[in-house]
Amino acid sequence: METLVVVGHPQIQDSSTQQFLKEAAALPDVTWHPLSTFDLNVAEEQALINQANRIVLQFPLYWYSAPAILKNWLDQVLTRRFAYPDAMGSLVGKELGIAVSLGSPARQFTAGGSENFSLSQILTPFQALAHKLQMTFLPTFVIDQFSYQTDDEKTKLLVNYQRYLTQAQLGHFDDRTNWLTARLAKLIPTVSTDKQQQLTLILEQLKNDQATLTDLQANLKMVQDMEDN
Amino acid sequence: METLVVVGHPQIQDSSTQQFLKEAAALPDVTWHPLSTFDLNVAEEQALINQANRIVLQFPLYWYSAPAILKNWLDQVLTRRFAYPDAMGSLVGKELGIAVSLGSPARQFTAGGSENFSLSQILTPFQALAHKLQMTFLPTFVIDQFSYQTDDEKTKLLVNYQRYLTQAQLGHFDDRTNWLTARLAKLIPTVSTDKQQQLTLILEQLKNDQATLTDLQANLKMVQDMEDN
Repeated sequence: METLVVVGHPQIQDSSTQQFLKEAAALPDVTWHPLSTFDLNVAEEQALINQANRIVLQFPLYWYSAPAILKNWLDQVLTRRFAYPDAMGSLVGKELGIAVSLGSPARQFTAGGSENFSLSQILTPFQALAHKLQMTFLPTFVIDQFSYQTDDEKTKLLVNYQRYLTQAQLGHFDDRTNWLTARLAKLIPTVSTDKQQQLTLILEQLKNDQATLTDLQANLKMVQDMEDN
Repeated sequence: METLVVVGHPQIQDSSTQQFLKEAAALPDVTWHPLSTFDLNVAEEQALINQANRIVLQFPLYWYSAPAILKNWLDQVLTRRFAYPDAMGSLVGKELGIAVSLGSPARQFTAGGSENFSLSQILTPFQALAHKLQMTFLPTFVIDQFSYQTDDEKTKLLVNYQRYLTQAQLGHFDDRTNWLTARLAKLIPTVSTDKQQQLTLILEQLKNDQATLTDLQANLKMVQDMEDN
């Protein structure tokens, strides 16, 4: 799977959030595409879209929407001829993800909170876009006040962000474990012998947990089948 | 009441909708402010906001939001210091209206329609903006596929648009009639004698209707009061 990350931030260099995510996104099959101008080569941008199965629009929430530099990208690149399903339909069947960083706490995005509307409500225009272009709209990836996060939280953020960019199916426990074990298996040969032992133990543990879960699910199914008969 | 109309359209000159609305907006106490650049003098823009009680953001719906040129205006002009209620709070108590023109039929903006989401859902980011800045969010003014409208529909559009820009309180029948009678009274001395007679008759009819409505409302209230006792 190929993922295109379109980053719309007026000052990417000055954003510790975006620099952190940029390092996390340095993965095979991920194209990091920061926007730096309003003056676009539309054909080149469309070629980037054509290469990808998953398109992630990544931006800080500015006045409850994407910054103008990203909106300009949508306005210019998604021409009717290129994008509409009754024309070329270049995005039909692709996935659309939103990776949004927040300056206010995520918990305030709720009725009665200081932001008063949920992120799902606020991001409806992107859901409508995905619907119109016959794309699959992914659950939004939220970066909640990055500068206040602890190191532990940042580590979790990194792993979850990498999953968001590269995991074939999002949201299922099996897939998450498969994704982690595959990542660990690749990582182990590249680290020192000490770490190799530690990581191998973790990998074995993960596989055991996965096997236990599979057993549990089989047992549960058997019980259900018995009750049904 | 002073109204500022911020028009965000990448090709205002080529838009018959915007040219029609521009002529309709040539009224006292209305400032027509078309955006033509991404490079703004922020202080000048903020001064325009300070002069107005009602701010109308006017744009064609591009990918379920405002075009980038209008989003850029919001991003640049509404600085934290200028706009946030806990700072200068320059917009507190003002009204925020949205005048949006649609390329798809308005009836498709509904669950199950081709657009699948209502305009209220799609415009949530603007409602959230008004909430954050402690502004009153006005009902949205919709221009439904202008190029397909009949002359009659365009005449109604013109009157309703002028009301949207200038009527002190939107949405109440009394106010609508008062607004129309005031407009007619101003218009009558400026037209030919024939038309003066016609318009005077209409004006009288309107005033009679208004009086009848007031009577009806008084009767209704009396009946309710009797039932309550």
